[in-house]
Amino acid sequence: MVVELISVGTEILLGNIVNTNAAYLAEKCAEAGLSCYYQTVVGDNMQRLKESIELGMSRADILILSGGLGPTQDDLTKEAVAELLNLRLVMDDDTRERIQEIFEKRNLEITVNNWKQALIPEGATVLDNANGTAPGIYVKAEKNHIVLLPGPPNELIPMFEEKVVPILKQLETSVIYSRTVKICGVGESKAETIIMDLMELQENPTIAPYAKTGEVHLRVTAKADSKEEAQKKVSPIVKELKARFGDDVYTTDPTVTLEKSVIELLKKHDLTLATAESCTGGLLSARLINVEGASKVFKAGMVTYSNKSKRKILGVKKPILTKFGAVSKETAVSMAKGILSQTQADVSVAITGVAGPDGGTENKPVGLVYIACCIDGITTTNEYQFSGNRSKIRESSVVAALTLLRKCVMKELKK
Amino acid sequence: MVVELISVGTEILLGNIVNTNAAYLAEKCAEAGLSCYYQTVVGDNMQRLKESIELGMSRADILILSGGLGPTQDDLTKEAVAELLNLRLVMDDDTRERIQEIFEKRNLEITVNNWKQALIPEGATVLDNANGTAPGIYVKAEKNHIVLLPGPPNELIPMFEEKVVPILKQLETSVIYSRTVKICGVGESKAETIIMDLMELQENPTIAPYAKTGEVHLRVTAKADSKEEAQKKVSPIVKELKARFGDDVYTTDPTVTLEKSVIELLKKHDLTLATAESCTGGLLSARLINVEGASKVFKAGMVTYSNKSKRKILGVKKPILTKFGAVSKETAVSMAKGILSQTQADVSVAITGVAGPDGGTENKPVGLVYIACCIDGITTTNEYQFSGNRSKIRESSVVAALTLLRKCVMKELKK
Repeated sequence: MVVELISVGTEILLGNIVNTNAAYLAEKCAEAGLSCYYQTVVGDNMQRLKESIELGMSRADILILSGGLGPTQDDLTKEAVAELLNLRLVMDDDTRERIQEIFEKRNLEITVNNWKQALIPEGATVLDNANGTAPGIYVKAEKNHIVLLPGPPNELIPMFEEKVVPILKQLETSVIYSRTVKICGVGESKAETIIMDLMELQENPTIAPYAKTGEVHLRVTAKADSKEEAQKKVSPIVKELKARFGDDVYTTDPTVTLEKSVIELLKKHDLTLATAESCTGGLLSARLINVEGASKVFKAGMVTYSNKSKRKILGVKKPILTKFGAVSKETAVSMAKGILSQTQADVSVAITGVAGPDGGTENKPVGLVYIACCIDGITTTNEYQFSGNRSKIRESSVVAALTLLRKCVMKELKK
Repeated sequence: MVVELISVGTEILLGNIVNTNAAYLAEKCAEAGLSCYYQTVVGDNMQRLKESIELGMSRADILILSGGLGPTQDDLTKEAVAELLNLRLVMDDDTRERIQEIFEKRNLEITVNNWKQALIPEGATVLDNANGTAPGIYVKAEKNHIVLLPGPPNELIPMFEEKVVPILKQLETSVIYSRTVKICGVGESKAETIIMDLMELQENPTIAPYAKTGEVHLRVTAKADSKEEAQKKVSPIVKELKARFGDDVYTTDPTVTLEKSVIELLKKHDLTLATAESCTGGLLSARLINVEGASKVFKAGMVTYSNKSKRKILGVKKPILTKFGAVSKETAVSMAKGILSQTQADVSVAITGVAGPDGGTENKPVGLVYIACCIDGITTTNEYQFSGNRSKIRESSVVAALTLLRKCVMKELKK
């Protein structure tokens, strides 16, 4: 079946936000075996919105619209669909109640425009929103299936996974099966070179590389009449990829992130962890703690951005800071050792670097980052030179720290 | 004039890459005073590409296409435009030479398909590519202006700035000017209620509300013949919005984020800050440290996720944890006081809460968060009930902490 994505929002047309929803939805639709030929962005304008929906209905079986479901007068997506399909908007009592509860919980007064969000095209299916007020909607029209999703990614993504994927699975009968081999510590072009021969042969299954910051995900996808048949096509390729990338493969489980694989590795071996961060400012600890159950592993994290706090909190000696500088191998090592003795954790990791845009020098340019990992008396330090803006450098540093941490723990366990 | 953006590339339709080019081009076109009503993404398919271009030509004055100018058989953008406009493709000698030079410099052999990149629709203007082989192209058709740009952002962006902006400036004489009033601590629908009368009147300037987590941004935009005239339309509305929202307006500067406004407020009054985080795990410190120059203000942050670390590192007394629990007003206060005495900072903020999905009880449900702020011997504590998933609750907590911090500091300074 053919799907078309319509993103609604003047803020996208004005370039205020990057349309990450479209990328997310496109990836998920491809996974679900749907073909996507067009994506459209249209503003909060009734006439143009209706024209886009009509055009989409003429060229696709399934339309997925995102955005424009909020309480304001600008939010017109639901109204446009209802008008085009000649459906009345009726109050959905469950949604009305849910919205009321949210406001009561937050101790906020409900303003009248909020009730607009509980209006649903007659006969449509409500997709409950666990993360916001506006519900999603699924309408089965004569020739089309139309799905309306709220714009905020933290509402759209869980709703899509929980409510829309089951609907799509019923619509698309040929089975798409895919597995993703997640790799850390190998660059995208190197990864591609390693699998070039496999990629050239591909047709069914296909191998698609997705570059994430510091990671490469290789998705192997097969289409077949049954899941078993598709799995049979995918399995040997996954096996081959695991053989080629060895320990750099951290999971083939779609629910496992790099930080989760690290937490699980530590938990399995009863090891506790502490972090010391300078330029990343807590991003590493935040990512680790975002893993459910991280409390069993994560002892504490210290954010020591200034030299003084590195000295006072982590016990980094003044001569180290003066002689080698805050961004140095020696400071990273001292931070990692300091946090270990402070917290009595089994493993520690420390990050110090120049995230920019200022603070770079000829010898220590923006993007230079040192990461140290301490385990069982052994400290491993790596030097990195990342590129990109401040937030990209910080993100790359966090992924590099997780990768180094994983490598050091695995090495220790192999002893 | 009206512009339409068409991004060409199957990799966007598959969700392999996020369409950052469209966001960049949209923002630049808005700045140039152009109205953009549609963005389209279409794959490397001649038929659909031609249909998209025809549709774009029928509804916009200027079409900007990106992608599909490379050397491979998949790259069809130029060919599609030439076919639609009945233009022959002719070899451009300068471009041919430029491509040859690039290959010689890189010591690479030129494969035959590379010459395809030097083919230009007859009569079109070549936009030299300083960062890659494929040139951009500008074609003046009967009713439309068509610009073709290479897909890689590091080629597209400089080419747009250097070659396309001057063309657009000649085409569009009216000016767009906008300012954004950023508000924290007021919900989106409440904000809208406050400005309902202004929004109903709007035409030029317009007011567009953008909801961010815990924030609302109101963008006021005017179109006029000169920048001065547009500013004159925008100013009184901005002034009115500032009057209506008072201290909840944290900035009207587009480059200032909430965390930046907090850092600047503290810096201006020579106050230092320390943070203590439980459920947010370092997200608050990470956001603060992402502000350039935060080092002057930010003393240290502690991530104390476990009870033990709250006791050991922040000195939270065991009876407090046993009697009131880790998620309580009392613990938040004790954390805020503990980090203050640990770091000798002037101001501290502490967060403790249930981010879920597990760990909620009837009395302390998922989403319950306490935030305490200490300044000059006075501690302010707020209780929040957030909804959403783990990461949404954490994000809401961080914004609430920044909002409370800002409020407490401002209150203290008013004394």
